[in-house]
Amino acid sequence: MDKSVLRKLLEKLQQGELTVAEALARLRHFPFENLEFARVDHHRTLRQGTPEVIYAPGKTDRQIIQISKSISGVGARVLITRLDKKRVTVLKKSLARLQYFPEARMGILLPGRKKTPEISFKTPVLICTAGTSDIPVAEEAAVTAWAMGCPVEKIYDVGVAGIHRLLAHKAKLTRAGIIIAVAGMEGALPSVIGGLAECPVIAVPTSVGYGASFGGLTALLSMLNTCASGVTVVNIDNGFGAAMAAIRIIRLKEGS
Amino acid sequence: MDKSVLRKLLEKLQQGELTVAEALARLRHFPFENLEFARVDHHRTLRQGTPEVIYAPGKTDRQIIQISKSISGVGARVLITRLDKKRVTVLKKSLARLQYFPEARMGILLPGRKKTPEISFKTPVLICTAGTSDIPVAEEAAVTAWAMGCPVEKIYDVGVAGIHRLLAHKAKLTRAGIIIAVAGMEGALPSVIGGLAECPVIAVPTSVGYGASFGGLTALLSMLNTCASGVTVVNIDNGFGAAMAAIRIIRLKEGS
Amino acid sequence: MDKSVLRKLLEKLQQGELTVAEALARLRHFPFENLEFARVDHHRTLRQGTPEVIYAPGKTDRQIIQISKSISGVGARVLITRLDKKRVTVLKKSLARLQYFPEARMGILLPGRKKTPEISFKTPVLICTAGTSDIPVAEEAAVTAWAMGCPVEKIYDVGVAGIHRLLAHKAKLTRAGIIIAVAGMEGALPSVIGGLAECPVIAVPTSVGYGASFGGLTALLSMLNTCASGVTVVNIDNGFGAAMAAIRIIRLKEGS
Amino acid sequence: MDKSVLRKLLEKLQQGELTVAEALARLRHFPFENLEFARVDHHRTLRQGTPEVIYAPGKTDRQIIQISKSISGVGARVLITRLDKKRVTVLKKSLARLQYFPEARMGILLPGRKKTPEISFKTPVLICTAGTSDIPVAEEAAVTAWAMGCPVEKIYDVGVAGIHRLLAHKAKLTRAGIIIAVAGMEGALPSVIGGLAECPVIAVPTSVGYGASFGGLTALLSMLNTCASGVTVVNIDNGFGAAMAAIRIIRLKEGS
Amino acid sequence: MDKSVLRKLLEKLQQGELTVAEALARLRHFPFENLEFARVDHHRTLRQGTPEVIYAPGKTDRQIIQISKSISGVGARVLITRLDKKRVTVLKKSLARLQYFPEARMGILLPGRKKTPEISFKTPVLICTAGTSDIPVAEEAAVTAWAMGCPVEKIYDVGVAGIHRLLAHKAKLTRAGIIIAVAGMEGALPSVIGGLAECPVIAVPTSVGYGASFGGLTALLSMLNTCASGVTVVNIDNGFGAAMAAIRIIRLKEGS
Amino acid sequence: MDKSVLRKLLEKLQQGELTVAEALARLRHFPFENLEFARVDHHRTLRQGTPEVIYAPGKTDRQIIQISKSISGVGARVLITRLDKKRVTVLKKSLARLQYFPEARMGILLPGRKKTPEISFKTPVLICTAGTSDIPVAEEAAVTAWAMGCPVEKIYDVGVAGIHRLLAHKAKLTRAGIIIAVAGMEGALPSVIGGLAECPVIAVPTSVGYGASFGGLTALLSMLNTCASGVTVVNIDNGFGAAMAAIRIIRLKEGS
Amino acid sequence: MDKSVLRKLLEKLQQGELTVAEALARLRHFPFENLEFARVDHHRTLRQGTPEVIYAPGKTDRQIIQISKSISGVGARVLITRLDKKRVTVLKKSLARLQYFPEARMGILLPGRKKTPEISFKTPVLICTAGTSDIPVAEEAAVTAWAMGCPVEKIYDVGVAGIHRLLAHKAKLTRAGIIIAVAGMEGALPSVIGGLAECPVIAVPTSVGYGASFGGLTALLSMLNTCASGVTVVNIDNGFGAAMAAIRIIRLKEGS
Amino acid sequence: MDKSVLRKLLEKLQQGELTVAEALARLRHFPFENLEFARVDHHRTLRQGTPEVIYAPGKTDRQIIQISKSISGVGARVLITRLDKKRVTVLKKSLARLQYFPEARMGILLPGRKKTPEISFKTPVLICTAGTSDIPVAEEAAVTAWAMGCPVEKIYDVGVAGIHRLLAHKAKLTRAGIIIAVAGMEGALPSVIGGLAECPVIAVPTSVGYGASFGGLTALLSMLNTCASGVTVVNIDNGFGAAMAAIRIIRLKEGS
Repeated sequence: MDKSVLRKLLEKLQQGELTVAEALARLRHFPFENLEFARVDHHRTLRQGTPEVIYAPGKTDRQIIQISKSISGVGARVLITRLDKKRVTVLKKSLARLQYFPEARMGILLPGRKKTPEISFKTPVLICTAGTSDIPVAEEAAVTAWAMGCPVEKIYDVGVAGIHRLLAHKAKLTRAGIIIAVAGMEGALPSVIGGLAECPVIAVPTSVGYGASFGGLTALLSMLNTCASGVTVVNIDNGFGAAMAAIRIIRLKEGS
Repeated sequence: MDKSVLRKLLEKLQQGELTVAEALARLRHFPFENLEFARVDHHRTLRQGTPEVIYAPGKTDRQIIQISKSISGVGARVLITRLDKKRVTVLKKSLARLQYFPEARMGILLPGRKKTPEISFKTPVLICTAGTSDIPVAEEAAVTAWAMGCPVEKIYDVGVAGIHRLLAHKAKLTRAGIIIAVAGMEGALPSVIGGLAECPVIAVPTSVGYGASFGGLTALLSMLNTCASGVTVVNIDNGFGAAMAAIRIIRLKEGS
Repeated sequence: MDKSVLRKLLEKLQQGELTVAEALARLRHFPFENLEFARVDHHRTLRQGTPEVIYAPGKTDRQIIQISKSISGVGARVLITRLDKKRVTVLKKSLARLQYFPEARMGILLPGRKKTPEISFKTPVLICTAGTSDIPVAEEAAVTAWAMGCPVEKIYDVGVAGIHRLLAHKAKLTRAGIIIAVAGMEGALPSVIGGLAECPVIAVPTSVGYGASFGGLTALLSMLNTCASGVTVVNIDNGFGAAMAAIRIIRLKEGS
Repeated sequence: MDKSVLRKLLEKLQQGELTVAEALARLRHFPFENLEFARVDHHRTLRQGTPEVIYAPGKTDRQIIQISKSISGVGARVLITRLDKKRVTVLKKSLARLQYFPEARMGILLPGRKKTPEISFKTPVLICTAGTSDIPVAEEAAVTAWAMGCPVEKIYDVGVAGIHRLLAHKAKLTRAGIIIAVAGMEGALPSVIGGLAECPVIAVPTSVGYGASFGGLTALLSMLNTCASGVTVVNIDNGFGAAMAAIRIIRLKEGS
Repeated sequence: MDKSVLRKLLEKLQQGELTVAEALARLRHFPFENLEFARVDHHRTLRQGTPEVIYAPGKTDRQIIQISKSISGVGARVLITRLDKKRVTVLKKSLARLQYFPEARMGILLPGRKKTPEISFKTPVLICTAGTSDIPVAEEAAVTAWAMGCPVEKIYDVGVAGIHRLLAHKAKLTRAGIIIAVAGMEGALPSVIGGLAECPVIAVPTSVGYGASFGGLTALLSMLNTCASGVTVVNIDNGFGAAMAAIRIIRLKEGS
Repeated sequence: MDKSVLRKLLEKLQQGELTVAEALARLRHFPFENLEFARVDHHRTLRQGTPEVIYAPGKTDRQIIQISKSISGVGARVLITRLDKKRVTVLKKSLARLQYFPEARMGILLPGRKKTPEISFKTPVLICTAGTSDIPVAEEAAVTAWAMGCPVEKIYDVGVAGIHRLLAHKAKLTRAGIIIAVAGMEGALPSVIGGLAECPVIAVPTSVGYGASFGGLTALLSMLNTCASGVTVVNIDNGFGAAMAAIRIIRLKEGS
Repeated sequence: MDKSVLRKLLEKLQQGELTVAEALARLRHFPFENLEFARVDHHRTLRQGTPEVIYAPGKTDRQIIQISKSISGVGARVLITRLDKKRVTVLKKSLARLQYFPEARMGILLPGRKKTPEISFKTPVLICTAGTSDIPVAEEAAVTAWAMGCPVEKIYDVGVAGIHRLLAHKAKLTRAGIIIAVAGMEGALPSVIGGLAECPVIAVPTSVGYGASFGGLTALLSMLNTCASGVTVVNIDNGFGAAMAAIRIIRLKEGS
Repeated sequence: MDKSVLRKLLEKLQQGELTVAEALARLRHFPFENLEFARVDHHRTLRQGTPEVIYAPGKTDRQIIQISKSISGVGARVLITRLDKKRVTVLKKSLARLQYFPEARMGILLPGRKKTPEISFKTPVLICTAGTSDIPVAEEAAVTAWAMGCPVEKIYDVGVAGIHRLLAHKAKLTRAGIIIAVAGMEGALPSVIGGLAECPVIAVPTSVGYGASFGGLTALLSMLNTCASGVTVVNIDNGFGAAMAAIRIIRLKEGS
């Protein structure tokens, strides 16, 4: 609850428009909706402009539908991550306007009757992957950024073992606004990109690989130890989080 | 080597001012200085405006001095991290203007005859720590950001087990430009800050703790799994890296 | 076997009511029932008042049924944990009064003909979760506490990234008897609750998360490193154990 | 800040004794003392009755002294953990009444001019160790509990490989209020005690061992997997935390 | 190849009964049968009297059949471990006399037309488990020992959290020849047994458990750190290996 | 892009056959084909003579087909690894000449209309396995080496626990060109082979085993710690990589 | 306390030689000596004939001396493991007859005035090491076995990378009573020995190595995964434990 | 022992020049020298032409001297790795011609009176490092290769975060015989080099780094997961092993 609201409340109390009991009650009242199994944080939506994301695994269809409706009801975007394709049909019965992006495994519910979000930001997000198998994670980042109103560019399959493939895009990397670098296996892509580009670089390790990749642990550790200074890292396969980090930066830049 | 330099080189070749052999040689010549044991990347300094940082462990005094002089010689800032206090006396004999920050364990060599850097950026970096023991890592970030020309603010010892200590600074957190959240033990600070503030939040796990903190691994894992969307993470105890990530963002914002 | 029983036995021997051989035999006789594959500990039920819990995985239907009947036969509660829904139909054929709680994945067999246990304790157990996906573990704790005769309260989905959701319940937390704090991902909830409340707080890490959550390891480590002093931890997803720890405390308090 | 204080504040505002600006300022004022490098939480001391513990590693002598004085200044107990013996002489110059317990590696500063704390609680805490080498951790628990006003009993060196040593104390275990079971190596002691006693049992793994004990990890994992239901666990070597957990339970029981 | 065979061979050469070429060839000839995909070690069977065990996972039905026939063909026992029940029908078509033990997941092919092995050893092997869920691993040990000709005794479900269940069998433990102690979860059983019994104790960790049991890692580490001196350990779930270790000991004792 | 091509380009520019703009463009043009989701590196094929391998998991059928056609289109070999048998039928519809090797789980597409590759190299690669279950990984190496034109020899099931099986092949090991040693479980085979043979030895850990083999981690660690000097290691189950390492060596030797 | 003692006690009670109170007291009286910080288990010494070993780290000199005197006082052997050389001088002041074995880092106090133990067993223990650096651990086993009365043989530095060094001792291995195989690095020695010898083989991993040996973890895992059936394993660097396991076996064999 | 020696031995037996007993004895006699604590493998020196390397840690000065003299006595090279500078003075007293290389931490004893080895091989080994701190490991490789008679080239400090530094040496990389790529932190160098060069590439992870580099584990895992096919890996900090792998390859190539 922001300061001006608090000030008003106190002024009302001072002016006798509220009793002490009423003031007390309101001070304890926060704008979130209680669905018993979930507390939808409309407050955060208002405060940060960010959507309340729904992480699908471990939630029932009914829970996803109710949370979606609650968010949607206040006119905000709904983003559902890790949504299995086979659940979509059931969800669509209750959430008719749900759009599904199979490669990203995401469901999106835009406010109003729009099918595409308004691209309200100017700073482009450039998403790179080391391999073809990293694309699903990259797409989670891409769909998230797009749904949040960012222009998105993509350069896929430019891993460091064929460095010329990456260097061919040096100009693009140099003038990028923000780069999301997605890689599995040895996870070296962000190190090279972090050295080539001076913009913010967000590294996303993926679980692509086998044996000693240990489900993405190797790529994660590799990225955390990058010798390119100023590269930051998110959780394994967390394309959504990388895009949200980009949004935080873009908001700072564009002042919205 | 940037495009305009290349274009000029090719034009000279076309106009007969260079032979093919000379052009070939120059194309292979990059602006880094070879000290045999180190290749100082003046190029990166020019390209990214970032200093070539010197990670002290595993380097001899002589190596640190020579690399410092090489960087310093092109008029760039020198940052030395993880520099043990007892090495400073020896280094100062050759690097007279070296400033040492014992809490941050950093040595700084500013260009020209200045003792303090020009604070050329406007976006402030707010550095928070969970505990008192996390301060050395926070100071590494603070000194780095300061040496790079950023305004720095600090809120230390506001861990989540006494949440009111943090909430007392809610206003400061809300209007911050960029927040660097430093925490050891369970590493929960960035999650709470990431929920309170909408600006970019960079999480730095520290090795503070014992037993199952496993040298900072717990704090690192905790931060990577944060449920606050859009928080990014750097390596354990990597205050320097967090500050450099902040610089990348500030440059994007301020357009320099 | 408690001391008074032993004393009586010895007195009988002294008084010639028992032969040495009989005394020897009785001294070796313990009140557990040997089902060949399982030794049901009626003794513990008598001694601790706690039920002999049946951990379902790795046990055959027949084994579960026989152990249940043995426990049930001495008038004690039967609690079956990690019981897959699809096994229930078969079990009910032999255990007609078995109640199944699908969200908690528990089967309960109350003594007598009762459908609900007598709520014999007064100290309420407050169960909190960080997210919606943590509810199944919380429910295992809730059903266990309920079956054991405790009053249970629940506050679900109050994770620390939206701290106001939790703070809205500060009063409830402050006056709670015992709090069970259930969280996956970064597992920070018990740290904040442990700082807000002065009552016993039992932390339950869950396997909710992906990537670097490593099946709940991150939440577990985070909770063990909590900076809130006096918070204790149980195994990953061990809602049952947390409830049993609460029962131990309540018994101490209420003297039963 | 508790509710009655808030109510009074609001009433004063209503009655014109405070301006809105003053009320706003007070609402933001929390009772902790800012030492720049540390925020001493007098609030917690008041709220929970628990001391603000000082974890010595990573803090300078000056920091420890200032925090101690700040806590001591409001009449509260000071507990310093992991305090190396060689630091005590320096600390005593500024903290004359500091008592040092070398085996527990703790420093204690009692309020007033007392040398021993008032034993205000009635429920005894029974501290058991598996081996002689586990005693320092047990002593940290014992000194903490004693400083907090608890009666303490000890049974040391009763590891499970000589089960009769433990069983000889069965009566003591059976009638204990709360048991803190301290063990390194395979960490089996809490499992056996948890089966023998029905009271709350808090398990403390220690880093005693070598090779595959991995600094206490084995004992920690063992205790988390205990088949004795309702046993809870704290961090490796965290005797302090175990005692604080006991205090939380005792307060609930004794209603203070 | 044992020494007397070599001596004879050399004597034959000396006496002209063999040419150098023949001697060379024989020296290089070892009694194993090459099935291209497997080299059945009849030599080991002869040398150690131990069967060539067939670890079923990763082998095709055809491979298992051929290896079994090869072993069976020289009159030796065949032991197949980790054999899924559903593979048995196919295998029986080619290996008519194959006996399957579903709980142990083992297939046994005895030499000759026998259905039960000759119990040729006298030292009994006592197999104990901590819980009911550990029985499959215990049965793998039991079937192996039985097939190798050992008398086998069993005490199942005597975990340490109900120590009286174990102590009830103290006499049996005291007079046992060799004890195989099987336990999952915290794996404490071998520590207690190792303290009670003076005979050889072989500890078998099982993968029974969840969360921080990490597939048996916790039980394994616990057993390796046992404070009962002289207890040895085999791989997780390796009932077969424990029985074979017992056989090595029994052979030493009984001199066969 | 190799030097002679660059020289020609520069000469053309010098001689006026190219404009600066054209030269610039060509300098940035690399010979890889952009399929949007994949950048096929024809350059590497030309430069290294090695095929662009397709790692099947995480790629759609359509992606595999398009990449295969792209590679195949420039007359190069196509190697598809980790290809599930059930995907082959679909792939064959578009890639009629695809050969599938079920044990190796590889698909091969040879250039031209050939069914077998030309065996252009002379140095034989000897592939050894410790057990029968390691054969699939060995076959991946064998098929790769064969498809690349190497003569391949195999000795399977010669693990160190029956050392005579291995020693029987000592002559073969001694005169081998390159040895690929494949082993799971304790992974000791390369140590013994590395001591017997003086040629290059490449160790391949496999995920064969259970319990504390941790999916091949044990074999991997064991091989990295080999006391046989000069043995090198590849990733778990990476038969393909071992064969490619052999090819690098053979090319050096045979000068092609 | 064994059965005959109990029987006598009960008979005395029956015959009026003891009162119930006396019988109760005796039943609770176990033959261990309480040193407050340690409970010396004379009972185990009597029951198992094994010494109470003193693990020196974490014990004060005073504690070691008192425990030693207590054990020594009942005429039993004292074995002190991991005893730093620099502590010996102090200990000898109180324990004049203490013998120190620097390579094994053990202190031995034999009963009576003897300088060497009576070699009362016949079965020899053969101790093998893979390298020279493993000798200290082997010596711990050797000194323990010797102090316990076993004949000891040694073959040091016969690692598997020079397999002929080991095979040269094949005869010795074949006729050995019990083999203790000590190895660091890849830990392959027990696998080869376990295949060559049919006697009991006890594997001891050592912390010898660097990098990915992870303090002996690799050797430990390797030994647990041995493909030689019936080999058992003890903790890293636990030479003492291996010798004690050998003693258990020898006692079984020799019937003492 | 090679075949021709065996043949001669058998012929002598056939011809009566040897008795059976003598033949038996010789068959068991291997050409290694028994120093009691070490078995110097002259055999390997003869067989593989490789030196018996002495790993210094865990060996006494006396042991190192005796092993060195034994090796040196048969005219072979002595290589001592991980040799602390402070031990050199003592060693030189007995090994006068010992040369010490402080950066590589190696001692070398060349055969004869030579101070430099004969560079008998032609294929150059190119050693690259990512950073200046990796140089000690690179020097271990360089000194080993040099002592073994290889031409050595070095390119140090060419990490991937400043990719132009590496690309400046593209020509050298392209025409290299064998490349040893040494890197700590994220360990990405071998991936880029493996893509640029077609020769054998041996990757050496180093323990350079902090935090989540986990003593070189990250670099090791990264290299094992390299997407550059055919790159092989040795243990962390194992410069010696990498050089020995290179020697194996060079011998194959040059046929010596």
